[in-house]
Amino acid sequence: MSENGNGNGTTGKKTFIIFSGEMDKVLAGFVLSNSAAAMGDEVTMFFTFWGLNALRKEHPPKTHGKSFLQTMFGMMMPRGPKKLALSHMNFAGVGPKLMSKAMRDQNVDCIDEMIATAQEQGIKMVACTMSMDVMGLKPEELIDGIEYAGAATYLSEADEANVNLFI
Amino acid sequence: MSENGNGNGTTGKKTFIIFSGEMDKVLAGFVLSNSAAAMGDEVTMFFTFWGLNALRKEHPPKTHGKSFLQTMFGMMMPRGPKKLALSHMNFAGVGPKLMSKAMRDQNVDCIDEMIATAQEQGIKMVACTMSMDVMGLKPEELIDGIEYAGAATYLSEADEANVNLFI
Amino acid sequence: MSENGNGNGTTGKKTFIIFSGEMDKVLAGFVLSNSAAAMGDEVTMFFTFWGLNALRKEHPPKTHGKSFLQTMFGMMMPRGPKKLALSHMNFAGVGPKLMSKAMRDQNVDCIDEMIATAQEQGIKMVACTMSMDVMGLKPEELIDGIEYAGAATYLSEADEANVNLFI
Repeated sequence: MSENGNGNGTTGKKTFIIFSGEMDKVLAGFVLSNSAAAMGDEVTMFFTFWGLNALRKEHPPKTHGKSFLQTMFGMMMPRGPKKLALSHMNFAGVGPKLMSKAMRDQNVDCIDEMIATAQEQGIKMVACTMSMDVMGLKPEELIDGIEYAGAATYLSEADEANVNLFI
Repeated sequence: MSENGNGNGTTGKKTFIIFSGEMDKVLAGFVLSNSAAAMGDEVTMFFTFWGLNALRKEHPPKTHGKSFLQTMFGMMMPRGPKKLALSHMNFAGVGPKLMSKAMRDQNVDCIDEMIATAQEQGIKMVACTMSMDVMGLKPEELIDGIEYAGAATYLSEADEANVNLFI
Repeated sequence: MSENGNGNGTTGKKTFIIFSGEMDKVLAGFVLSNSAAAMGDEVTMFFTFWGLNALRKEHPPKTHGKSFLQTMFGMMMPRGPKKLALSHMNFAGVGPKLMSKAMRDQNVDCIDEMIATAQEQGIKMVACTMSMDVMGLKPEELIDGIEYAGAATYLSEADEANVNLFI
Protein backbone atom coordinates (compact mmCIF):
# COMPACT_ATOMS: atom_id res chain seq x y z
CA MET A 1 0.00 0.00 0.00
CA SER A 2 1.22 3.46 -0.78
CA GLU A 3 1.07 6.40 1.58
CA ASN A 4 0.38 9.91 0.45
CA GLY A 5 2.62 12.92 0.98
CA ASN A 6 0.98 13.81 4.29
CA GLY A 7 2.11 10.55 5.81
CA ASN A 8 -1.34 9.84 7.21
CA GLY A 9 -1.56 6.32 5.83
CA THR A 10 -4.29 6.98 3.28
CA THR A 11 -3.66 6.24 -0.36
CA GLY A 12 -3.24 9.19 -2.64
CA LYS A 13 -5.09 10.05 -5.81
CA LYS A 14 -3.05 10.25 -9.02
CA THR A 15 -3.69 12.10 -12.29
CA PHE A 16 -1.83 11.60 -15.55
CA ILE A 17 -2.22 13.85 -18.60
CA ILE A 18 -1.61 11.77 -21.74
CA PHE A 19 -0.67 14.47 -24.22
CA SER A 20 1.68 12.62 -26.52
CA GLY A 21 0.27 9.97 -28.82
CA GLU A 22 3.55 8.14 -29.05
CA MET A 23 3.30 4.45 -28.22
CA ASP A 24 6.09 4.51 -25.67
CA LYS A 25 4.68 7.46 -23.72
CA VAL A 26 1.11 6.10 -23.78
CA LEU A 27 2.58 2.84 -22.49
CA ALA A 28 4.38 4.63 -19.66
CA GLY A 29 1.09 6.33 -18.75
CA PHE A 30 -0.78 3.05 -18.52
CA VAL A 31 1.99 1.25 -16.61
CA LEU A 32 1.96 4.02 -13.98
CA SER A 33 -1.86 4.22 -13.89
CA ASN A 34 -2.42 0.50 -13.61
CA SER A 35 0.29 0.14 -10.96
CA ALA A 36 -1.19 2.98 -8.90
CA ALA A 37 -4.70 1.52 -9.16
CA ALA A 38 -3.37 -1.90 -8.14
CA MET A 39 -1.87 -0.22 -5.05
CA GLY A 40 -5.28 1.16 -4.11
CA ASP A 41 -4.96 4.68 -5.51
CA GLU A 42 -7.77 6.51 -7.28
CA VAL A 43 -6.50 7.33 -10.80
CA THR A 44 -7.66 9.77 -13.48
CA MET A 45 -6.10 9.75 -16.95
CA PHE A 46 -6.78 12.88 -18.99
CA PHE A 47 -6.25 12.36 -22.74
CA THR A 48 -5.57 15.48 -24.74
CA PHE A 49 -4.16 16.40 -28.18
CA TRP A 50 -2.32 13.47 -29.78
CA GLY A 51 -3.02 11.37 -26.70
CA LEU A 52 -6.61 11.11 -27.90
CA ASN A 53 -5.40 8.87 -30.72
CA ALA A 54 -4.86 6.09 -28.17
CA LEU A 55 -8.63 6.12 -27.53
CA ARG A 56 -9.75 6.02 -31.16
CA LYS A 57 -11.65 3.01 -32.43
CA GLU A 58 -9.90 1.11 -35.18
CA HIS A 59 -13.14 0.97 -37.19
CA PRO A 60 -15.19 4.04 -36.21
CA PRO A 61 -18.73 4.67 -37.49
CA LYS A 62 -19.15 7.23 -40.26
CA THR A 63 -19.37 10.78 -38.85
CA HIS A 64 -20.95 13.94 -40.23
CA GLY A 65 -20.41 17.65 -39.97
CA LYS A 66 -16.61 17.69 -40.02
CA SER A 67 -14.77 20.53 -41.73
CA PHE A 68 -12.26 19.73 -44.46
CA LEU A 69 -9.43 20.33 -41.98
CA GLN A 70 -10.97 18.06 -39.35
CA THR A 71 -11.51 15.31 -41.91
CA MET A 72 -7.86 15.63 -42.88
CA PHE A 73 -6.69 15.50 -39.26
CA GLY A 74 -8.87 12.42 -38.77
CA MET A 75 -7.38 10.68 -41.76
CA MET A 76 -3.77 11.44 -40.94
CA MET A 77 -3.76 10.73 -37.21
CA PRO A 78 -3.32 7.12 -36.03
CA ARG A 79 -6.51 5.22 -35.20
CA GLY A 80 -6.15 3.42 -31.90
CA PRO A 81 -3.31 1.96 -29.86
CA LYS A 82 -2.04 -0.41 -32.56
CA LYS A 83 -1.28 2.45 -34.93
CA LEU A 84 0.74 4.65 -32.58
CA ALA A 85 4.32 5.57 -33.52
CA LEU A 86 7.41 5.43 -31.30
CA SER A 87 9.07 8.70 -30.21
CA HIS A 88 12.45 7.23 -31.22
CA MET A 89 13.46 4.53 -33.69
CA ASN A 90 10.05 4.55 -35.36
CA PHE A 91 11.49 3.44 -38.74
CA ALA A 92 8.31 4.19 -40.69
CA GLY A 93 6.19 2.00 -38.42
CA VAL A 94 8.51 -1.00 -38.06
CA GLY A 95 9.78 0.21 -34.66
CA PRO A 96 6.41 -0.09 -32.84
CA LYS A 97 5.97 -3.66 -34.14
CA LEU A 98 9.44 -4.62 -32.91
CA MET A 99 8.79 -2.92 -29.56
CA SER A 100 5.47 -4.81 -29.22
CA LYS A 101 7.26 -8.06 -29.97
CA ALA A 102 10.00 -7.27 -27.42
CA MET A 103 7.25 -6.55 -24.87
CA ARG A 104 5.43 -9.82 -25.59
CA ASP A 105 8.74 -11.69 -25.24
CA GLN A 106 9.00 -10.27 -21.70
CA ASN A 107 5.31 -10.89 -20.86
CA VAL A 108 4.57 -7.17 -20.79
CA ASP A 109 0.98 -6.40 -21.84
CA CYS A 110 0.44 -4.48 -25.06
CA ILE A 111 -1.45 -1.18 -24.93
CA ASP A 112 -4.93 -2.50 -25.73
CA GLU A 113 -4.60 -5.05 -22.94
CA MET A 114 -3.46 -2.26 -20.62
CA ILE A 115 -6.50 -0.16 -21.58
CA ALA A 116 -8.76 -3.10 -20.74
CA THR A 117 -7.03 -3.54 -17.37
CA ALA A 118 -7.38 0.18 -16.67
CA GLN A 119 -11.12 0.02 -17.30
CA GLU A 120 -11.49 -3.14 -15.18
CA GLN A 121 -9.67 -1.40 -12.32
CA GLY A 122 -12.06 1.56 -12.47
CA ILE A 123 -9.50 4.08 -13.69
CA LYS A 124 -11.31 7.20 -14.87
CA MET A 125 -10.35 7.94 -18.47
CA VAL A 126 -11.30 11.44 -19.63
CA ALA A 127 -11.12 12.81 -23.18
CA CYS A 128 -10.34 16.54 -23.50
CA THR A 129 -13.29 18.18 -25.21
CA MET A 130 -11.36 21.22 -26.45
CA SER A 131 -8.85 19.01 -28.29
CA MET A 132 -11.71 16.91 -29.67
CA ASP A 133 -13.34 20.07 -31.04
CA VAL A 134 -10.14 21.32 -32.68
CA MET A 135 -9.29 17.95 -34.21
CA GLY A 136 -12.91 17.19 -35.05
CA LEU A 137 -13.04 13.92 -33.10
CA LYS A 138 -16.59 12.83 -32.19
CA PRO A 139 -17.44 10.76 -29.07
CA GLU A 140 -18.62 7.86 -31.28
CA GLU A 141 -15.11 7.61 -32.74
CA LEU A 142 -13.60 6.98 -29.29
CA ILE A 143 -13.81 3.80 -27.24
CA ASP A 144 -16.71 3.27 -24.84
CA GLY A 145 -16.59 3.80 -21.09
CA ILE A 146 -14.76 7.12 -21.06
CA GLU A 147 -15.80 10.59 -19.86
CA TYR A 148 -15.59 14.00 -21.55
CA ALA A 149 -14.36 17.18 -19.89
CA GLY A 150 -12.11 20.24 -20.19
CA ALA A 151 -9.12 21.80 -18.45
CA ALA A 152 -11.14 23.06 -15.45
CA THR A 153 -12.22 19.52 -14.61
CA TYR A 154 -8.66 18.27 -14.93
CA LEU A 155 -7.41 21.00 -12.57
CA SER A 156 -10.05 20.15 -9.96
CA GLU A 157 -9.00 16.51 -10.09
CA ALA A 158 -5.31 17.43 -9.86
CA ASP A 159 -6.05 19.59 -6.82
CA GLU A 160 -7.25 16.47 -5.03
CA ALA A 161 -4.27 14.32 -6.08
CA ASN A 162 -0.81 14.00 -4.56
CA VAL A 163 0.97 12.98 -7.78
CA ASN A 164 0.24 14.69 -11.13
CA LEU A 165 2.29 14.01 -14.25
CA PHE A 166 2.21 15.42 -17.80
CA ILE A 167 3.28 12.60 -20.12
CA MET B 1 -13.37 27.26 -7.22
CA SER B 2 -10.68 24.65 -6.88
CA GLU B 3 -9.53 23.14 -3.63
CA ASN B 4 -5.98 22.15 -2.93
CA GLY B 5 -4.77 18.71 -1.96
CA ASN B 6 -5.10 19.39 1.74
CA GLY B 7 -8.84 19.81 1.38
CA ASN B 8 -8.83 23.02 3.40
CA GLY B 9 -10.76 25.02 0.84
CA THR B 10 -7.94 27.34 -0.18
CA THR B 11 -6.92 27.51 -3.81
CA GLY B 12 -3.64 25.89 -4.71
CA LYS B 13 -0.66 27.39 -6.46
CA LYS B 14 0.38 25.81 -9.78
CA THR B 15 3.72 25.80 -11.61
CA PHE B 16 4.30 24.74 -15.20
CA ILE B 17 7.73 24.27 -16.77
CA ILE B 18 7.50 25.06 -20.49
CA PHE B 19 10.52 23.16 -21.80
CA SER B 20 9.37 22.21 -25.27
CA GLY B 21 9.02 24.95 -27.87
CA GLU B 22 6.49 23.00 -29.87
CA MET B 23 3.31 24.92 -30.60
CA ASP B 24 1.00 22.19 -29.28
CA LYS B 25 2.83 21.83 -25.95
CA VAL B 26 3.13 25.60 -25.42
CA LEU B 27 -0.60 25.76 -26.13
CA ALA B 28 -1.34 23.07 -23.53
CA GLY B 29 0.74 25.02 -21.02
CA PHE B 30 -1.22 28.21 -21.57
CA VAL B 31 -4.62 26.48 -21.55
CA LEU B 32 -3.80 24.93 -18.16
CA SER B 33 -2.26 28.15 -16.79
CA ASN B 34 -5.09 30.41 -17.90
CA SER B 35 -7.73 27.97 -16.64
CA ALA B 36 -6.02 27.69 -13.25
CA ALA B 37 -5.70 31.47 -12.94
CA ALA B 38 -9.37 31.86 -13.90
CA MET B 39 -10.21 29.45 -11.04
CA GLY B 40 -8.35 31.68 -8.59
CA ASP B 41 -5.03 29.85 -8.45
CA GLU B 42 -1.65 31.57 -8.32
CA VAL B 43 0.30 30.41 -11.39
CA THR B 44 3.98 30.49 -12.32
CA MET B 45 5.16 29.48 -15.79
CA PHE B 46 8.88 28.75 -16.03
CA PHE B 47 10.20 28.89 -19.62
CA THR B 48 13.40 26.99 -20.27
CA PHE B 49 15.33 25.64 -23.27
CA TRP B 50 13.19 25.59 -26.43
CA GLY B 51 10.25 26.92 -24.43
CA LEU B 52 12.00 30.30 -24.42
CA ASN B 53 11.25 30.58 -28.12
CA ALA B 54 7.60 31.22 -27.27
CA LEU B 55 8.69 34.42 -25.51
CA ARG B 56 10.90 35.77 -28.30
CA LYS B 57 9.94 39.02 -30.01
CA GLU B 58 9.22 38.66 -33.69
CA HIS B 59 11.34 41.73 -34.43
CA PRO B 60 13.98 41.96 -31.67
CA PRO B 61 16.44 44.85 -31.37
CA LYS B 62 20.01 44.26 -32.55
CA THR B 63 22.12 42.62 -29.82
CA HIS B 64 25.86 42.59 -29.20
CA GLY B 65 28.41 40.28 -27.63
CA LYS B 66 27.03 36.98 -28.88
CA SER B 67 29.41 34.16 -29.77
CA PHE B 68 29.26 32.63 -33.24
CA LEU B 69 27.39 29.63 -31.77
CA GLN B 70 24.86 31.82 -29.96
CA THR B 71 24.25 33.86 -33.11
CA MET B 72 23.64 30.62 -34.98
CA PHE B 73 21.23 29.31 -32.31
CA GLY B 74 19.43 32.65 -32.43
CA MET B 75 19.05 32.49 -36.19
CA MET B 76 17.87 28.90 -36.33
CA MET B 77 15.40 28.88 -33.45
CA PRO B 78 11.85 30.13 -34.04
CA ARG B 79 11.14 33.74 -33.12
CA GLY B 80 7.91 33.97 -31.13
CA PRO B 81 4.68 32.02 -30.91
CA LYS B 82 3.75 32.33 -34.58
CA LYS B 83 6.90 30.49 -35.67
CA LEU B 84 6.65 27.44 -33.42
CA ALA B 85 6.50 23.98 -34.99
CA LEU B 86 4.10 21.16 -34.13
CA SER B 87 5.47 18.03 -32.40
CA HIS B 88 3.59 15.88 -34.94
CA MET B 89 2.37 16.54 -38.47
CA ASN B 90 4.50 19.66 -38.81
CA PHE B 91 4.79 19.27 -42.60
CA ALA B 92 7.56 21.84 -42.97
CA GLY B 93 5.51 24.52 -41.23
CA VAL B 94 2.12 23.92 -42.89
CA GLY B 95 0.86 21.91 -39.89
CA PRO B 96 0.97 24.82 -37.39
CA LYS B 97 -0.97 27.03 -39.82
CA LEU B 98 -3.65 24.36 -40.26
CA MET B 99 -3.79 23.80 -36.50
CA SER B 100 -4.19 27.56 -35.91
CA LYS B 101 -7.01 27.62 -38.47
CA ALA B 102 -8.70 24.62 -36.82
CA MET B 103 -8.42 26.44 -33.47
CA ARG B 104 -9.91 29.66 -34.86
CA ASP B 105 -12.77 27.62 -36.36
CA GLN B 106 -13.57 26.40 -32.85
CA ASN B 107 -13.11 29.82 -31.21
CA VAL B 108 -9.98 28.68 -29.39
CA ASP B 109 -7.50 31.54 -28.82
CA CYS B 110 -4.17 31.39 -30.62
CA ILE B 111 -0.97 31.44 -28.57
CA ASP B 112 -0.28 35.18 -28.68
CA GLU B 113 -3.81 35.85 -27.44
CA MET B 114 -3.26 33.29 -24.67
CA ILE B 115 0.00 35.03 -23.68
CA ALA B 116 -1.87 38.34 -23.45
CA THR B 117 -4.58 36.72 -21.29
CA ALA B 118 -1.93 35.17 -19.06
CA GLN B 119 -0.33 38.56 -18.48
CA GLU B 120 -3.71 40.21 -17.84
CA GLN B 121 -4.51 37.53 -15.26
CA GLY B 122 -1.25 38.19 -13.43
CA ILE B 123 0.37 34.86 -14.23
CA LYS B 124 4.06 35.05 -13.39
CA MET B 125 6.13 34.20 -16.47
CA VAL B 126 9.78 33.44 -15.72
CA ALA B 127 12.59 32.95 -18.26
CA CYS B 128 15.34 30.51 -17.25
CA THR B 129 18.59 32.45 -17.10
CA MET B 130 20.86 29.41 -17.53
CA SER B 131 19.16 28.48 -20.80
CA MET B 132 19.30 32.11 -21.92
CA ASP B 133 23.06 32.13 -21.28
CA VAL B 134 23.66 28.90 -23.18
CA MET B 135 21.52 29.92 -26.15
CA GLY B 136 22.72 33.49 -26.02
CA LEU B 137 19.25 35.03 -25.65
CA LYS B 138 19.26 38.56 -24.19
CA PRO B 139 16.38 40.00 -22.11
CA GLU B 140 15.71 42.64 -24.79
CA GLU B 141 14.94 39.84 -27.28
CA LEU B 142 12.13 38.50 -25.08
CA ILE B 143 8.69 40.03 -24.55
CA ASP B 144 8.14 42.59 -21.79
CA GLY B 145 6.59 41.86 -18.42
CA ILE B 146 8.46 38.67 -17.61
CA GLU B 147 10.91 37.79 -14.83
CA TYR B 148 14.34 36.12 -14.95
CA ALA B 149 15.50 33.36 -12.62
CA GLY B 150 17.20 29.97 -12.33
CA ALA B 151 16.39 26.44 -11.17
CA ALA B 152 16.60 27.30 -7.45
CA THR B 153 13.84 29.87 -7.83
CA TYR B 154 11.70 27.40 -9.75
CA LEU B 155 12.14 24.79 -7.02
CA SER B 156 11.14 27.24 -4.30
CA GLU B 157 7.99 28.09 -6.25
CA ALA B 158 7.21 24.42 -6.85
CA ASP B 159 7.61 23.74 -3.12
CA GLU B 160 4.72 26.12 -2.48
CA ALA B 161 2.48 24.64 -5.20
CA ASN B 162 0.16 21.64 -5.15
CA VAL B 163 0.35 20.89 -8.89
CA ASN B 164 3.66 21.02 -10.81
CA LEU B 165 3.97 19.86 -14.41
CA PHE B 166 6.89 19.59 -16.86
CA ILE B 167 5.49 20.25 -20.32
CA MET C 1 16.45 26.67 1.76
CA SER C 2 13.25 25.42 0.26
CA GLU C 3 10.04 24.84 2.15
CA ASN C 4 7.59 22.13 1.25
CA GLY C 5 3.99 22.62 0.26
CA ASN C 6 2.73 22.30 3.80
CA GLY C 7 4.68 25.36 4.84
CA ASN C 8 6.13 23.64 7.89
CA GLY C 9 9.70 24.57 7.16
CA THR C 10 10.96 21.08 6.34
CA THR C 11 12.52 20.43 2.97
CA GLY C 12 10.51 18.38 0.51
CA LYS C 13 11.47 15.24 -1.34
CA LYS C 14 11.54 15.41 -5.15
CA THR C 15 11.22 12.69 -7.79
CA PHE C 16 12.01 13.04 -11.47
CA ILE C 17 11.17 10.42 -14.11
CA ILE C 18 13.76 10.59 -16.89
CA PHE C 19 11.85 9.00 -19.75
CA SER C 20 13.32 10.78 -22.74
CA GLY C 21 16.88 10.01 -23.73
CA GLU C 22 17.34 13.35 -25.42
CA MET C 23 20.37 15.26 -24.24
CA ASP C 24 18.45 18.45 -23.50
CA LYS C 25 15.80 16.73 -21.38
CA VAL C 26 18.33 14.61 -19.47
CA LEU C 27 20.21 17.83 -18.83
CA ALA C 28 17.08 19.52 -17.48
CA GLY C 29 16.52 16.54 -15.20
CA PHE C 30 20.01 16.76 -13.73
CA VAL C 31 19.94 20.56 -13.34
CA LEU C 32 16.70 20.27 -11.34
CA SER C 33 17.91 17.25 -9.34
CA ASN C 34 21.28 18.72 -8.46
CA SER C 35 19.74 22.08 -7.53
CA ALA C 36 17.16 20.41 -5.30
CA ALA C 37 19.81 18.28 -3.59
CA ALA C 38 21.97 21.38 -3.07
CA MET C 39 18.96 22.99 -1.36
CA GLY C 40 18.75 20.07 1.07
CA ASP C 41 16.00 18.05 -0.63
CA GLU C 42 16.01 14.25 -0.89
CA VAL C 43 15.96 13.42 -4.62
CA THR C 44 15.12 10.25 -6.56
CA MET C 45 15.66 10.05 -10.32
CA PHE C 46 13.83 7.19 -12.01
CA PHE C 47 15.29 6.32 -15.44
CA THR C 48 12.95 4.51 -17.80
CA PHE C 49 12.73 3.76 -21.54
CA TRP C 50 15.10 5.95 -23.58
CA GLY C 51 16.20 7.68 -20.37
CA LEU C 52 18.16 4.51 -19.54
CA ASN C 53 20.55 5.38 -22.35
CA ALA C 54 21.96 8.18 -20.19
CA LEU C 55 23.13 5.52 -17.73
CA ARG C 56 24.80 3.21 -20.25
CA LYS C 57 28.54 2.64 -20.07
CA GLU C 58 30.42 3.80 -23.14
CA HIS C 59 32.38 0.53 -23.19
CA PRO C 60 30.16 -2.12 -21.58
CA PRO C 61 31.34 -5.70 -20.95
CA LYS C 62 30.16 -8.42 -23.35
CA THR C 63 26.71 -9.71 -22.37
CA HIS C 64 24.99 -13.02 -23.06
CA GLY C 65 21.46 -14.28 -23.48
CA LYS C 66 20.03 -11.37 -25.46
CA SER C 67 17.41 -11.99 -28.13
CA PHE C 68 18.05 -10.77 -31.66
CA LEU C 69 15.67 -7.87 -31.03
CA GLN C 70 17.38 -6.90 -27.79
CA THR C 71 20.80 -7.03 -29.44
CA MET C 72 19.48 -4.76 -32.16
CA PHE C 73 17.99 -2.29 -29.64
CA GLY C 74 21.32 -2.32 -27.81
CA MET C 75 23.25 -1.55 -30.97
CA MET C 76 20.97 1.22 -32.17
CA MET C 77 20.41 3.10 -28.92
CA PRO C 78 23.01 5.66 -27.78
CA ARG C 79 25.61 4.44 -25.28
CA GLY C 80 25.96 6.94 -22.47
CA PRO C 81 25.53 10.68 -22.03
CA LYS C 82 28.00 11.70 -24.75
CA LYS C 83 25.98 9.94 -27.42
CA LEU C 84 22.54 11.41 -26.69
CA ALA C 85 20.72 13.36 -29.39
CA LEU C 86 18.97 16.71 -29.07
CA SER C 87 15.16 16.86 -29.29
CA HIS C 88 15.49 19.79 -31.75
CA MET C 89 18.25 20.86 -34.10
CA ASN C 90 20.05 17.54 -33.78
CA PHE C 91 21.54 17.80 -37.29
CA ALA C 92 22.71 14.19 -37.41
CA GLY C 93 24.66 14.53 -34.19
CA VAL C 94 26.32 17.91 -34.78
CA GLY C 95 23.70 19.70 -32.63
CA PRO C 96 24.65 17.98 -29.35
CA LYS C 97 28.33 18.82 -29.90
CA LEU C 98 27.48 22.48 -30.51
CA MET C 99 25.17 22.53 -27.48
CA SER C 100 27.94 21.02 -25.31
CA LYS C 101 30.35 23.65 -26.58
CA ALA C 102 27.81 26.42 -25.85
CA MET C 103 27.41 25.00 -22.34
CA ARG C 104 31.17 24.88 -21.73
CA ASP C 105 31.43 28.47 -22.94
CA GLN C 106 28.98 29.44 -20.17
CA ASN C 107 30.63 27.24 -17.52
CA VAL C 108 27.65 24.89 -17.42
CA ASP C 109 28.66 21.31 -16.56
CA CYS C 110 28.21 18.64 -19.23
CA ILE C 111 25.99 15.64 -18.46
CA ASP C 112 28.69 13.25 -17.25
CA GLU C 113 29.90 15.88 -14.78
CA MET C 114 26.30 16.37 -13.65
CA ILE C 115 25.91 12.62 -13.12
CA ALA C 116 29.06 12.61 -10.97
CA THR C 117 27.72 15.55 -8.93
CA ALA C 118 24.37 13.78 -8.51
CA GLN C 119 26.11 10.70 -7.13
CA GLU C 120 28.33 12.80 -4.83
CA GLN C 121 25.23 14.54 -3.47
CA GLY C 122 23.58 11.21 -2.67
CA ILE C 123 20.82 11.48 -5.25
CA LYS C 124 19.16 8.09 -5.64
CA MET C 125 19.31 6.99 -9.29
CA VAL C 126 16.97 4.11 -10.11
CA ALA C 127 16.86 2.14 -13.39
CA CYS C 128 13.41 0.83 -14.40
CA THR C 129 13.63 -2.96 -14.51
CA MET C 130 10.65 -3.44 -16.85
CA SER C 131 12.23 -1.18 -19.49
CA MET C 132 15.57 -2.95 -19.02
CA ASP C 133 13.86 -6.30 -19.66
CA VAL C 134 12.10 -5.08 -22.81
CA MET C 135 15.21 -3.42 -24.23
CA GLY C 136 17.47 -6.20 -23.02
CA LEU C 137 19.76 -3.96 -20.98
CA LYS C 138 21.74 -5.80 -18.29
CA PRO C 139 22.87 -4.19 -14.99
CA GLU C 140 26.53 -4.62 -15.99
CA GLU C 141 25.92 -2.35 -19.01
CA LEU C 142 24.80 0.53 -16.79
CA ILE C 143 27.00 2.74 -14.61
CA ASP C 144 27.78 1.72 -11.04
CA GLY C 145 26.08 3.09 -7.94
CA ILE C 146 22.48 2.93 -9.17
CA GLU C 147 19.47 0.94 -7.94
CA TYR C 148 16.96 -1.23 -9.83
CA ALA C 149 13.19 -1.14 -9.34
CA GLY C 150 9.79 -0.99 -11.02
CA ALA C 151 6.76 1.29 -11.21
CA ALA C 152 5.45 0.36 -7.74
CA THR C 153 8.68 1.55 -6.13
CA TYR C 154 8.54 4.78 -8.10
CA LEU C 155 4.95 5.41 -6.98
CA SER C 156 5.83 4.85 -3.33
CA GLU C 157 8.66 7.35 -3.63
CA ALA C 158 6.41 9.86 -5.40
CA ASP C 159 3.84 9.49 -2.63
CA GLU C 160 6.44 10.80 -0.17
CA ALA C 161 7.53 13.70 -2.38
CA ASN C 162 6.02 17.17 -2.82
CA VAL C 163 7.29 17.72 -6.40
CA ASN C 164 7.14 14.96 -9.04
CA LEU C 165 7.95 15.60 -12.70
CA PHE C 166 7.89 13.42 -15.84
CA ILE C 167 10.70 14.65 -18.09
